[in-house]
Amino acid sequence: MSAEARLSQGQPQGLLDPRLFPYDFGRFGGKVERLAQRLAASAVERDRRGGSAQAERQLLRDSGLLSLAVPQTFGGQGLDWPSLYRLVRYLAAADSSLAHLFAFQHLQVATILLFGSADQQRHWLGRTVQERWFWGNAANGRDNRLSLDRRDEHFELNGSKSFCSGALGSDALVISAPRPGSRDERVFLVLPAQREGLAINDDWDGFGQRQTDSGTVQFDNVFVDAGELLGPVGASPRGTLRTCLSQLILTQLYLGNAQAALDAALRYTREEARPWPASGVGQASDDPYNQLRYGDLWLRYRSALLLAEEAAQRLQTAWEKPALTAAERGEVALAAAEAKVVSARAALDITAQIFESMGARATSSRYGFDRFWRNVRVHSLHDPLDYKVRDLGRWLLDGVPPVPSIYS
Amino acid sequence: MSAEARLSQGQPQGLLDPRLFPYDFGRFGGKVERLAQRLAASAVERDRRGGSAQAERQLLRDSGLLSLAVPQTFGGQGLDWPSLYRLVRYLAAADSSLAHLFAFQHLQVATILLFGSADQQRHWLGRTVQERWFWGNAANGRDNRLSLDRRDEHFELNGSKSFCSGALGSDALVISAPRPGSRDERVFLVLPAQREGLAINDDWDGFGQRQTDSGTVQFDNVFVDAGELLGPVGASPRGTLRTCLSQLILTQLYLGNAQAALDAALRYTREEARPWPASGVGQASDDPYNQLRYGDLWLRYRSALLLAEEAAQRLQTAWEKPALTAAERGEVALAAAEAKVVSARAALDITAQIFESMGARATSSRYGFDRFWRNVRVHSLHDPLDYKVRDLGRWLLDGVPPVPSIYS
Amino acid sequence: MSAEARLSQGQPQGLLDPRLFPYDFGRFGGKVERLAQRLAASAVERDRRGGSAQAERQLLRDSGLLSLAVPQTFGGQGLDWPSLYRLVRYLAAADSSLAHLFAFQHLQVATILLFGSADQQRHWLGRTVQERWFWGNAANGRDNRLSLDRRDEHFELNGSKSFCSGALGSDALVISAPRPGSRDERVFLVLPAQREGLAINDDWDGFGQRQTDSGTVQFDNVFVDAGELLGPVGASPRGTLRTCLSQLILTQLYLGNAQAALDAALRYTREEARPWPASGVGQASDDPYNQLRYGDLWLRYRSALLLAEEAAQRLQTAWEKPALTAAERGEVALAAAEAKVVSARAALDITAQIFESMGARATSSRYGFDRFWRNVRVHSLHDPLDYKVRDLGRWLLDGVPPVPSIYS
Amino acid sequence: MSAEARLSQGQPQGLLDPRLFPYDFGRFGGKVERLAQRLAASAVERDRRGGSAQAERQLLRDSGLLSLAVPQTFGGQGLDWPSLYRLVRYLAAADSSLAHLFAFQHLQVATILLFGSADQQRHWLGRTVQERWFWGNAANGRDNRLSLDRRDEHFELNGSKSFCSGALGSDALVISAPRPGSRDERVFLVLPAQREGLAINDDWDGFGQRQTDSGTVQFDNVFVDAGELLGPVGASPRGTLRTCLSQLILTQLYLGNAQAALDAALRYTREEARPWPASGVGQASDDPYNQLRYGDLWLRYRSALLLAEEAAQRLQTAWEKPALTAAERGEVALAAAEAKVVSARAALDITAQIFESMGARATSSRYGFDRFWRNVRVHSLHDPLDYKVRDLGRWLLDGVPPVPSIYS
Repeated sequence: MSAEARLSQGQPQGLLDPRLFPYDFGRFGGKVERLAQRLAASAVERDRRGGSAQAERQLLRDSGLLSLAVPQTFGGQGLDWPSLYRLVRYLAAADSSLAHLFAFQHLQVATILLFGSADQQRHWLGRTVQERWFWGNAANGRDNRLSLDRRDEHFELNGSKSFCSGALGSDALVISAPRPGSRDERVFLVLPAQREGLAINDDWDGFGQRQTDSGTVQFDNVFVDAGELLGPVGASPRGTLRTCLSQLILTQLYLGNAQAALDAALRYTREEARPWPASGVGQASDDPYNQLRYGDLWLRYRSALLLAEEAAQRLQTAWEKPALTAAERGEVALAAAEAKVVSARAALDITAQIFESMGARATSSRYGFDRFWRNVRVHSLHDPLDYKVRDLGRWLLDGVPPVPSIYS
Repeated sequence: MSAEARLSQGQPQGLLDPRLFPYDFGRFGGKVERLAQRLAASAVERDRRGGSAQAERQLLRDSGLLSLAVPQTFGGQGLDWPSLYRLVRYLAAADSSLAHLFAFQHLQVATILLFGSADQQRHWLGRTVQERWFWGNAANGRDNRLSLDRRDEHFELNGSKSFCSGALGSDALVISAPRPGSRDERVFLVLPAQREGLAINDDWDGFGQRQTDSGTVQFDNVFVDAGELLGPVGASPRGTLRTCLSQLILTQLYLGNAQAALDAALRYTREEARPWPASGVGQASDDPYNQLRYGDLWLRYRSALLLAEEAAQRLQTAWEKPALTAAERGEVALAAAEAKVVSARAALDITAQIFESMGARATSSRYGFDRFWRNVRVHSLHDPLDYKVRDLGRWLLDGVPPVPSIYS
Repeated sequence: MSAEARLSQGQPQGLLDPRLFPYDFGRFGGKVERLAQRLAASAVERDRRGGSAQAERQLLRDSGLLSLAVPQTFGGQGLDWPSLYRLVRYLAAADSSLAHLFAFQHLQVATILLFGSADQQRHWLGRTVQERWFWGNAANGRDNRLSLDRRDEHFELNGSKSFCSGALGSDALVISAPRPGSRDERVFLVLPAQREGLAINDDWDGFGQRQTDSGTVQFDNVFVDAGELLGPVGASPRGTLRTCLSQLILTQLYLGNAQAALDAALRYTREEARPWPASGVGQASDDPYNQLRYGDLWLRYRSALLLAEEAAQRLQTAWEKPALTAAERGEVALAAAEAKVVSARAALDITAQIFESMGARATSSRYGFDRFWRNVRVHSLHDPLDYKVRDLGRWLLDGVPPVPSIYS
Repeated sequence: MSAEARLSQGQPQGLLDPRLFPYDFGRFGGKVERLAQRLAASAVERDRRGGSAQAERQLLRDSGLLSLAVPQTFGGQGLDWPSLYRLVRYLAAADSSLAHLFAFQHLQVATILLFGSADQQRHWLGRTVQERWFWGNAANGRDNRLSLDRRDEHFELNGSKSFCSGALGSDALVISAPRPGSRDERVFLVLPAQREGLAINDDWDGFGQRQTDSGTVQFDNVFVDAGELLGPVGASPRGTLRTCLSQLILTQLYLGNAQAALDAALRYTREEARPWPASGVGQASDDPYNQLRYGDLWLRYRSALLLAEEAAQRLQTAWEKPALTAAERGEVALAAAEAKVVSARAALDITAQIFESMGARATSSRYGFDRFWRNVRVHSLHDPLDYKVRDLGRWLLDGVPPVPSIYS
């Protein structure tokens, strides 16, 4: 494969520069590498096209990696969260949209583990493994247009949900709705995606994360069996770890794009960029301002990386406890907030500033180098960074950790 | 027109918020406004499509504004540069690509004024007015693949030039080439775009400024009459004002995108954005962090605006002098460097950060709000900002203004 | 005078680098220059010592420049505000504390012009000129410990005021107090500093602006004649220009320190700093990172400077009108807010970052180069920058200019 | 002790806020705490005074902590570097100057361990423990005024060294000088501070780190026994760990000041600061902009902290190996560079910005809150941050780690 062909993917042939990603995946390594390469090969083209990437979703199904978060007792691989996060980050460097869908699979698995009864866990996670299910969600907490009503023995869903990442093309959905008879409480439920009355629109048109199948789901008298309702949300600090889990998934996607951008830019600067005439040096790599810029961007990346790894460790420690105090949960949320904000900001700046050292010719659409910024820009708007920073400052001033919610 | 329809253009119906653009165009006002509105109406859609905007180029031709820089003595309007720059900035808020082509028209006119003999000025500028010519260029100074050779009574061009903004669809071209028999000297020449052997490719595929027709021009034994060669480049400080003129065009495009982004974001925040639940306020406009962000972005915009206006004034003063000292030319170049760097950085940050206050739904492709950043990101790579800043610092340390060149 | 002696003052021998201060003072030029040099000669030493600079205050009295803002009709020079601000800025580069006292002189003169009756103006400003009065103030608006009570034919002051810049060593004071019988309204009054019952403490101990005589004033049954009360505060938009005037004084002091810091650092880098071994260059001025840094700091300075000059012009225009609408007053306040915030931030960064290019030996106390940062750090806390930025953002979002107050 | 008295030290009564310093010192905890409190009690006053803190140096001697880095086999405590660095960081929050002297003690001990023969180690480190020696240094690598010449059986030192931290008041010195007969090679030697011909000036007058006894040492025909010369510098990668050790000491001092500044500011904001009138909140802690600022500063602090801890771990791993490859040494140097730059920048910004939330009254000299910035500003000029960042960028571009030197 030619240098230009490699560049046109903005990706290394095999691995990322190991300085950017100094981890391996042990027994999953081969699978992950093959998957990453398959995704990377068409990522620029699919970013341009948008829409749903059903063939690539099938690659994920076939990889056997969709059950990584399922405990071994249910037939999965029971991988720990820090390792899973690294894997998401690695895949995000290859294809940020598909990495998003991959990561949200594990979030839905975790939702069943956090809120499902033993029977529910066995049933749904067993099917997840055996039938290679790909989970989607319809759980956007700010969209209040969905209602869940009791009908004698069963329940019924009516309304709609926007931003349903992964819904289109999924086998089953995790859905959130107001608990019947309550205004403020939410409940999670699980449904096969084929359930009658459930329509998944292909209407996601964000300028980044373009193949995340994040369209609207509509519910028209959708039957819900009582057994499909998971336990109450917010009843215990441990359940609210779901938010932390989710926030750290976002974090990996920012870092994944940042590392891909740095990797592509360093290679381009070494191999393709021309030295600026006024620099007096023979190659772009020797330009003192390029060296300074990459040093600065590296510091941004490294700061974010260490906070992300630290937060993943804190989450795993909390995850392994059968119950959590509010303070223990708070520590995870604070670490997740730190990692998320620093990663998002670093990724926004890295993906924007690499161009200063690559120069004008790197803006050709054939490289697709702008997708890194567009992905991060869209994805980092999930919930405002300002309020994460505010939560940290308030905690320092009054000692109260962030109030658990669907966003903090 | 519905609020959403207006938003979908990322543009005000009539004018920009007058706080962002506190200028008017006097007798040209009506024409400019109609033109801006026509361009804005399809800008989002055309940004998506890319390629050449021949219908919109025709609008520019029909507007009669292509001769604004042509002195009245040659039939033009003889508008001063500060006014022309404001007009470019205003149109850039409507359509950054077409504003680019419009601005480069005047740069080519200025090239003829700076380097052409009296006869050449009369001939080429006369035809520009009478035949409503749209000028393109093939003058990329870093692309050395074009040669100009003497053939008895005439000259001949062979080779190619990249990044030829406005060439496709133009009536005539300003071309730069090495002076025959010289390695370092360049000469400008002017040619009708239909000249035999001259092929203009539709191969521009940048991720921003997508309709600037900035493709490659190929020259295959292209005949050049001796009279088509303009005077020598770099022979006098006044001639090198061309670089300053050009740098300040870039500046207007950054500012045009910045003001459009701010305008669209303020309107969206007022009319569409929802308050963040944790903010405790009833509308997004009352969020203290949104207020802080817009205040900060405004300060970035205003700093850039004043430097741009100051530089335009200095340029005009120099333009009006029949001859310039190196020091006088240096003052214009320094002011242009200041304006350019501060504007580019402000525009990059403004076009990226507006999303923090608009939120995730503003990333829908139907708004096209990302085009502001993409336009600025691509256009600000024309030549490295680092070296502009370096030039300023060096001048402070050793008193020597930037060495006149095609970039400084 | 040796290079080191000049450096030890952090000041140029004669003038600031004219690129940093491209203005002159016409017929006042000689006086200003002599004054600036006298102040600069001992500024480092007096910064170390703190306390009150009575000898230097006498220099100001003797210069005849204390009546610059007094209209010619009352015997003053009637200088316009933009010129006065430049003068303050220039003196602030020599001695930021004394420039502060000098500027506040004119603020008190303006207070009498804005709120005094024709008779009061004639009386107090006449004495100001004839007796070479130096005015101080006791008008800190956040300190509520001072009360003004009616006693038959006269009034009486009791309590205290902190942060009374210039009070110690002054001839007369502008004082603010709650209007008798009102909770929210304030009134200005003027008193000779020798008035019985009035005690001015030498208790200012800030780590910057160390000789501003900004101590506490105590009032113990201080007699106030009815004629010493100026007209009501806040009754008209024009009166509230006092806040704008005051905010722009602060701005000049930030800029004055910034320009002094840049001037001293450029000279030090040229004359004293050693090149860093790893740089490979022969002198510090040729270091590419020093050049980049000075370029960047210059851009910060220039952005602030242009906003400050623009705001001064807007203020002058408003000042010359006999009456103002709220909107006209708002425009001045907005421009003042812009200038103040950008200047304060620029000055904080410039005064901190110059050291990166000067190196460790420039931290010797004999140079006193840290006083620039200390002065700006202290002075920029007069009122929070955050709320200035918030005011600008809120105005953009809802169209309402800052509410006139003693701080905005 | 009153709140104000505590505030006037800028220090917590007992410990730092454990969120800022979540470590303990095990069996050394009591000693460290007592020492920190003794130092903190007079730190503000001694910062004002400058000069040498002989009484406090005696406290360090008496604490028994000067032998912490001495291996147990020589009678010391053999503490690992990560723990030692935390201790330095903690003491730096109490008194940055004395923490500097304390840290440099261990650096000199390490120098003997890295370059001394087994006999030399036993001799000098044994005496260090038994006689409670406090080591100083005269090893400034940029000062070339010191020469070492061979005289028959012995050597002789002549000349001087500047920036000799800890020299004044020390018992012994580590000195560096050019190897006799060589231009580029350096050698370390050790001498009792009382050696004839050796004069230590009390001439340090930096505006920060004011009691670091960093004066000039003069050598006049100073006798050096051949046995006092340590092994060659730069002969092995492991020896060059001395630079990494030293760079990470600087890092701890930046972090120590940053944590002290944050701790003091948070307490002041909670207990003393008044809410800004326009904020509409009842206490400064509830101001949304204060919360945002502290959140942001916290993120700066945490990023730096994690990099510093990571670098300390890498150093310890390398330290424990009997020999190092250049690549292994490079990894330590890169981690140290990351930690140093991010810590210095974070500390500069934190120590400057805390005032925005504390307000004007916090600038009273009695609090001494400006000393944090002054300490960091002075100390971070040891060697330029620019070149550390450049080294990182260059390594990313060409794969070559920083060239080992006395600064990298």
